[in-house]
Amino acid sequence: MSDAVLVLNAGSSSIKFAVYPARAGEDAALLGGKITGIGTRAVFAARDGDGAAMAPGPMGDVAALDHHALIARLVDWLDSHHEGIAIVAAGHRVVHGGQRFAAPCRITPQTMADLQALAPLAPLHQPHNLDAIAALTARAPDLPQVACFDTAFHRSQPHLAQLFALPRHFADEGILRYGFHGLSYDYIAGILPDHLGAQAEGRVIVAHLGNGASMCAMQGRKSVASTMGFTALDGLMMGQRCGALDAGVVLHLIQTLGMSAQAVQDLLYHEAGLLGVSGLSNDMATLERSTDPHAREAIALFCYRAARELGSLAAALQGLDALVFTAGIGENSALCRALICDYLGWMGVALDADANRAHATVISAPGARMPVLVLPTNEELVVAQGVRRVLAQG
Amino acid sequence: MSDAVLVLNAGSSSIKFAVYPARAGEDAALLGGKITGIGTRAVFAARDGDGAAMAPGPMGDVAALDHHALIARLVDWLDSHHEGIAIVAAGHRVVHGGQRFAAPCRITPQTMADLQALAPLAPLHQPHNLDAIAALTARAPDLPQVACFDTAFHRSQPHLAQLFALPRHFADEGILRYGFHGLSYDYIAGILPDHLGAQAEGRVIVAHLGNGASMCAMQGRKSVASTMGFTALDGLMMGQRCGALDAGVVLHLIQTLGMSAQAVQDLLYHEAGLLGVSGLSNDMATLERSTDPHAREAIALFCYRAARELGSLAAALQGLDALVFTAGIGENSALCRALICDYLGWMGVALDADANRAHATVISAPGARMPVLVLPTNEELVVAQGVRRVLAQG
Repeated sequence: MSDAVLVLNAGSSSIKFAVYPARAGEDAALLGGKITGIGTRAVFAARDGDGAAMAPGPMGDVAALDHHALIARLVDWLDSHHEGIAIVAAGHRVVHGGQRFAAPCRITPQTMADLQALAPLAPLHQPHNLDAIAALTARAPDLPQVACFDTAFHRSQPHLAQLFALPRHFADEGILRYGFHGLSYDYIAGILPDHLGAQAEGRVIVAHLGNGASMCAMQGRKSVASTMGFTALDGLMMGQRCGALDAGVVLHLIQTLGMSAQAVQDLLYHEAGLLGVSGLSNDMATLERSTDPHAREAIALFCYRAARELGSLAAALQGLDALVFTAGIGENSALCRALICDYLGWMGVALDADANRAHATVISAPGARMPVLVLPTNEELVVAQGVRRVLAQG
Repeated sequence: MSDAVLVLNAGSSSIKFAVYPARAGEDAALLGGKITGIGTRAVFAARDGDGAAMAPGPMGDVAALDHHALIARLVDWLDSHHEGIAIVAAGHRVVHGGQRFAAPCRITPQTMADLQALAPLAPLHQPHNLDAIAALTARAPDLPQVACFDTAFHRSQPHLAQLFALPRHFADEGILRYGFHGLSYDYIAGILPDHLGAQAEGRVIVAHLGNGASMCAMQGRKSVASTMGFTALDGLMMGQRCGALDAGVVLHLIQTLGMSAQAVQDLLYHEAGLLGVSGLSNDMATLERSTDPHAREAIALFCYRAARELGSLAAALQGLDALVFTAGIGENSALCRALICDYLGWMGVALDADANRAHATVISAPGARMPVLVLPTNEELVVAQGVRRVLAQG
């Protein structure tokens, strides 16, 4: 039996999971997969460490199960069908750790209560993250569990980068720019020296462009600023979220157009972004295949806003030494990378069109002043590493 | 008798006025002044074209008068005390011209109705601007009046710069980034060639830093992007306004903290910005004199946010050829100029400390790659020029 760590990343309609060796330094997953379509028709898929599809067994008939039942069944599947693996701890991606949780932490009744109190700061994500912890606690009460936070990586930011221009007591009460996608940035920060050598310690912007999207300005591989703010709504235009929006628009929607705050929340989180501007889809690949001019405009706006936010972060860094693209769009959309980089020639960015089309690791032109990289992210590994560290601390 | 144009800039508690020759090309004001403290204790002050204080006459006893009565009295003062000047037309600064008014326009009952319909987009400014027109119409019904718009200069922006990532119908209904302070930018654009020669046609950022503050990215002396959005709340931190704020904060204040939309509006327009962060004052000069660390932090945040927004605009321009500071803080705060420029060395900005302290016109260091200028703005002259153009069109 080899000891292993179960990693769970639970969202509203999906649960991603992975199993890593418990031993430090062994960074290849033993297996991993996801359950999608939760709430409508749940579907399970998993692959072993060699990439081969795994038999679903008791996970083959889960269409009608809810989050709790799915997690219990997943533990059964791991227990009974994967001899040789003993799950000794679990780690969870938790979106919001507030000001206090700046590192992975062991789940206790007290930490659960503290994390519940942060749920209003991330209403679309935090409840699902915590539900997964509760479900696993019910199924395996003695299993050590660890929470790893998407906000933690950004706690190194200077106070000015975290502060809104509001009366001081709001900051004291936690209304700050937290930043998110920290597990992804933590992973990229960890592998940067493999690709950039000593330059990894310089001024680097990492663009995590997925259905949720943000950018992080790093110096010395620490977060200096991020495009996301208090919630996961700010900054870049996203699949369904608006990104940066004049606060006066929110007031106008409520005061003049008579919308409820809940209706505005639904609009800004679910009906805006690529979906809203295109009128077609929140999916970049779908929009790229479309010939509809509204799809073109949505892509153009996504890239224009990304370039604007990148300029803002470069000012926070007082210059830029390297640029990294990651996550779904960042890793797979040569068009978006090209359109964004078209705005950045003045910073020394120049792409190699062939390398970009091929999604190569290095896509900057030979001899270009600025290295531009495409690096696949791995949030699950960062969670596994967090679990190992907490376990090692005893 | 020499024909002249009266310019009015009416705010909530003040009315600025100036009188210019009606003849094109005569850009020195014949006289000008302001009424401050309206609503509490109104006070009048005026200077002639040589800068000498003018006798208040019937304006000496106006403490209790409201906007309407003050404007009627001001016309009396001009009529009866300033022989040799015949007011043949008036021009007004009007904050919001929406999508339609991209140039100065003659006031008619129809244009007044159109401008009234825009009042919800600028609730703190537009009603006062239109009240002044109505008051002058009541006192001088046959006087031609012209509205000049703070939004008009920005209508040259590419559509992407004006678009929010919201469902398309919101843009069709006028929810766009309009940008403001356009009269100031128009003035600066007009004098740029005097200071920059052919470089004036390049990529220039103008920082209008006053109690209200914004920046404009220009190319070919046309607006390409602005930090202000749909309302005058977005972008830079201001005296009492928050500037860029995560839309999720607005929702949190309403949904979780239970504030009304009106209370949030009051907070974001009147209690935030320098005032909120310092807890002391909205006035930059007052904060600069303070030794309170909260005052220092407010100034530091103002300058940090300004540098971030400047980086964003530089990305819209794909580089920067010159930087101009104007308006109250931009013209008078050597500290703010220095702190903002400290972030911009990577763009080629380097200040001459002595020139900056002296508020010289050129404050960039000799040999610096980037010209940095301090240019006093003159919104009133732009209004007078707008009136002349409309009159010339007949």
